[in-house]
Amino acid sequence: MKVVVYGAGQLAQMMYLAGAPLGIDVQAVDVSDSSIVNPVDKSSSGVSLRDAITEAKCLTVEFEHVPVELLNDAQQSGKLAPDMAAIRVGADRVLEKRLLEKLHVANCQHQIITHINQLDAAVESLGERLILKASLDGYDGYGQWRLTDKNDLPTLKRKLGDLDLAAVPLVVEQMLNFDRELSVIGARAPDGKTVVYPLAENLHHNGQLHVSIAPATQLTSELNQQAKQIFDTIAQALNYVGVLAVEMFQIGNKLLVNEIAPRVHNSGHWSIQGAKTSQFENHLRAVTDLPLGATDAVGVSAMVNIIGCGSIAKDLLSVAGTYLQWYGKSVRPKRKMGHINVNAQTYSELAERLALLKPHLPIEHFPKLIEEIARLNSLDE
Amino acid sequence: MKVVVYGAGQLAQMMYLAGAPLGIDVQAVDVSDSSIVNPVDKSSSGVSLRDAITEAKCLTVEFEHVPVELLNDAQQSGKLAPDMAAIRVGADRVLEKRLLEKLHVANCQHQIITHINQLDAAVESLGERLILKASLDGYDGYGQWRLTDKNDLPTLKRKLGDLDLAAVPLVVEQMLNFDRELSVIGARAPDGKTVVYPLAENLHHNGQLHVSIAPATQLTSELNQQAKQIFDTIAQALNYVGVLAVEMFQIGNKLLVNEIAPRVHNSGHWSIQGAKTSQFENHLRAVTDLPLGATDAVGVSAMVNIIGCGSIAKDLLSVAGTYLQWYGKSVRPKRKMGHINVNAQTYSELAERLALLKPHLPIEHFPKLIEEIARLNSLDE
Repeated sequence: MKVVVYGAGQLAQMMYLAGAPLGIDVQAVDVSDSSIVNPVDKSSSGVSLRDAITEAKCLTVEFEHVPVELLNDAQQSGKLAPDMAAIRVGADRVLEKRLLEKLHVANCQHQIITHINQLDAAVESLGERLILKASLDGYDGYGQWRLTDKNDLPTLKRKLGDLDLAAVPLVVEQMLNFDRELSVIGARAPDGKTVVYPLAENLHHNGQLHVSIAPATQLTSELNQQAKQIFDTIAQALNYVGVLAVEMFQIGNKLLVNEIAPRVHNSGHWSIQGAKTSQFENHLRAVTDLPLGATDAVGVSAMVNIIGCGSIAKDLLSVAGTYLQWYGKSVRPKRKMGHINVNAQTYSELAERLALLKPHLPIEHFPKLIEEIARLNSLDE
Repeated sequence: MKVVVYGAGQLAQMMYLAGAPLGIDVQAVDVSDSSIVNPVDKSSSGVSLRDAITEAKCLTVEFEHVPVELLNDAQQSGKLAPDMAAIRVGADRVLEKRLLEKLHVANCQHQIITHINQLDAAVESLGERLILKASLDGYDGYGQWRLTDKNDLPTLKRKLGDLDLAAVPLVVEQMLNFDRELSVIGARAPDGKTVVYPLAENLHHNGQLHVSIAPATQLTSELNQQAKQIFDTIAQALNYVGVLAVEMFQIGNKLLVNEIAPRVHNSGHWSIQGAKTSQFENHLRAVTDLPLGATDAVGVSAMVNIIGCGSIAKDLLSVAGTYLQWYGKSVRPKRKMGHINVNAQTYSELAERLALLKPHLPIEHFPKLIEEIARLNSLDE
């Protein structure tokens, strides 16, 4: 059974590795030239995209920014899962915010502006601490601006003056003093059945995810229920099929949705060794209409991204419970090169193992690790 | 980092899937024509064996019956692990028995005969219940004969009359009334460090492994210690590097070695989901001199081989704790097509899950399943 994934990065690669045991042959579309490649070694298959679509049981995506003409073709085949409307919601912050409003799902207070002159009114209504996000191509900290002081507004307006906000509106959000960021990842089957993973707790640095802890610390049944309800509400409204990730802010006992990612998600990589079924296997199970697998966590896990670091000393594998996933990409600053999963029985054991890991790592590339070890150590388990 | 595996079957495939996350590119040698292929889709790499050897960090095997001329070349590169002598011990029952005798490792009473006329004396000394095994190419029940009654000796001698026993001696073994078959699988690193997995309990049918349970039921520390000692004795004597499997018979509290397999082993497939590190990953870690991973079991597992059965209803994945590994081969009678791993917390839960699995399977291909469910259910946990 063949599944075509648009995008040939690490997410397609991890889908391939999860699919092979199930007899699912995952093929990747390099969207730069529409060629079909092996998701691991990137060798060309020699098959055309058209033939690959014809032969596939199912088409899916590893990222939401697939060129619209490719998505259109995929949608017309009737094989795309999740479907184009769901993918577009993840790619366009205006559609995303409209969906959340329509569904009455709590999210950050915001306004959508289509002309720079509307910014003053937005500041008036939302306050002077704002994040401005381009509706399209917002990804990993790109296409975002901040305002923290009303006096900087003229400078910001000049900076944004060249943008065609009628074509690509800005979402202007209130900057929140949230307690932490959580994500809920789950899968929805064609029959509407959903499963969700335990919530992950995500630590960012300069707009990039650096560390996820799953299950998140200090979860309450109230938080879990809210997250499940948010997931189900969104997934059902989109008639979603596949793995869906929802990033949320926690403020007190309340969850606000930050972003929807219509795909497997970096904050779910812990599930490869840390859950009964990985998010990659569950995505493939969902889109090919196989029974969904159990999402229970096995102990507690940390996922540590390897960012902008061209090689890593593999002796880190000597630390108990440690697994490496290397993506095989050429190095660039801020590029995700791989991740390390660390699994343990308790958070304090996890902290201990992360501390043992530290000497094996070029620590300048892991700016969140030390504080996270301290935080896990300070928990009252 | 590249690792070349001689043999392009399911074991190479599972090594590939375990290697990719570690940045290890596993390439397979199709020993029928010495071509280098992708172990999953079997597509040709276009690289010559010579170039592949040059580029590889390490060479290894997925089966012991690699043509000797290929093994010679591999050995001469200085990159083969385990080395040729160890592989030959697994391929040649005479070398195997000599090693066990030299190491004083308990094994089945036997004689090696190089002429059919020596068979009478063997019967005289070992009794009339015998298994005769060709020293070479003995694999999965091929090249074996049985004697259960002295009166059948003339017939058997006629049957064996055409064999060149001087070239390929016979190992004549006493047929044992053993309690059960167990296997110990472990890995040895270049520095001599070893790790072993919990013992697996193996159920055969017509000379083929059908079901493994791991950890084996009713283990005692005495059995575990014997197995570890047997493993260490053999692995050290061979200066072994990689995963090694030792099949054993249990009689009372005593373990007798039946066979040595210098490779990852069917009775270790449960480790993919059932252990902290799979045998495939540990083999690659050992041969590339990375730290060995933990071999602890996660709960209890059953590995159920899918034999001679061209397809399988994937709705079996609806049974909790169930994982499928499909090898993607064309079907032949008695051919291993894939396996199912079932994981549970207890043996009774395992029995329950196997019982739920049963209706999803063409049961005529799974002749050991029903009795194994009954046996697991009858255990006093």
